[in-house]
Amino acid sequence: MSEAGFAKTPEPPYYAVIFTSTRTRVDEGYGDVAARMVELASQQPGFLGVESTRGAEGLGITVSYWTTLEAIAAWKANAEHRIAQATGHRKWYEHFETRIARVERAYGGPKRT
Amino acid sequence: MSEAGFAKTPEPPYYAVIFTSTRTRVDEGYGDVAARMVELASQQPGFLGVESTRGAEGLGITVSYWTTLEAIAAWKANAEHRIAQATGHRKWYEHFETRIARVERAYGGPKRT
Repeated sequence: MSEAGFAKTPEPPYYAVIFTSTRTRVDEGYGDVAARMVELASQQPGFLGVESTRGAEGLGITVSYWTTLEAIAAWKANAEHRIAQATGHRKWYEHFETRIARVERAYGGPKRT
Repeated sequence: MSEAGFAKTPEPPYYAVIFTSTRTRVDEGYGDVAARMVELASQQPGFLGVESTRGAEGLGITVSYWTTLEAIAAWKANAEHRIAQATGHRKWYEHFETRIARVERAYGGPKRT
């Protein structure tokens, strides 16, 4: 059972930021900044983990997990993150939707016996 | 601004089922059943939309949106869905995590002016 790519989250409740996006054709440092944002997020108070993928057809979904809404607000306001957000809005994202949600129940599998 | 692949959800609150998975190497009807499950889910009471993607490295994230926890429970118990779940647990999924969350805030972008 491989768990690469999965966030190791505690028992609920905790919070999730679901970020769904499509990219423009503009690259200009996107990959480096995206990797840096994962590194920077993981150093923030209240960060629990992240799961992220983008399919060949271009739709990306990144879900980051946090202890509290306050931790999410602090990360959104982080200075280096704000610069990345502004750059993303200006040139990297065609469209995005951000949803902030309270995880109430969680289970994994499969349970093979 | 392309919105293909994005769920058109109403103002929060509503619920999200975040399903993160890695696949085995077994195909055996997976694509057809996955497509059928999206079709079937979209016919269920309380279904709001779905966003789904799987990257080249194998991690898949599917987020379905629902009006209530009761709608999610009814979909989980749907007979045809139960057969698909059992097959998925037995042969299609290497690992998965399911998280049920209450969406409290949502916004889209970018707002280019």
